[in-house]
Amino acid sequence: MKALILVAHGSRRKVSNIEVIQIATRLAGQVQDNYEHVGHAFLELASPSIPEAIEDAIINGAEEVVILPYFLSAGRHVHEDVPEFVSQKQREHPTIKITLAPYLGGSGEIIKLLASISSQH
Amino acid sequence: MKALILVAHGSRRKVSNIEVIQIATRLAGQVQDNYEHVGHAFLELASPSIPEAIEDAIINGAEEVVILPYFLSAGRHVHEDVPEFVSQKQREHPTIKITLAPYLGGSGEIIKLLASISSQH
Repeated sequence: MKALILVAHGSRRKVSNIEVIQIATRLAGQVQDNYEHVGHAFLELASPSIPEAIEDAIINGAEEVVILPYFLSAGRHVHEDVPEFVSQKQREHPTIKITLAPYLGGSGEIIKLLASISSQH
Repeated sequence: MKALILVAHGSRRKVSNIEVIQIATRLAGQVQDNYEHVGHAFLELASPSIPEAIEDAIINGAEEVVILPYFLSAGRHVHEDVPEFVSQKQREHPTIKITLAPYLGGSGEIIKLLASISSQH
């Protein structure tokens, strides 16, 4: 079983965290051919944490877990904090494949999406 | 002349701000049919500020300025801070049309983009 976990920064504003959960839910509907489980996690300020979400996926039978960072900038969070959680969980679960997908802002497709939003305006 | 300004939060990390400038530059190439000028601005921690970028566009001949928020969450920045700058500049320049495009994270297309990134993984 393959699981996808959308990881966002987390906010003190509940409504921002709910927005992330809604995106993960809508994403689940789009990736069901590849992923049986789609979860969400927050780096800080909200729960579940990244380790909690990975554990939850494994308890639910995931043999492979993909972490998808919902971040626009390649800062410390993307380059250090999120990868460190992934490495730590990979060491704890050597038989599970835990990998990190490219962060959202690094996708070349984001330019097309910005162009699309601005052309509709 | 129509101008587009990509507005990001701004970071203490120079490299994150440079990433935004690079995205604005690449975006310029994609929207040249609609926008003769594409600029960038930061809400805080970096320059140019939103008012500075709007003034720059107007000095360069813009009769219409579209502000495109490069934000994932609809928090205070998206709902209050950015619109306040836009309203203030609109009052100062009543003959220029200054409008706010939807923020990036609010686009339904972002789900497709996340699905695409995760399916390539």
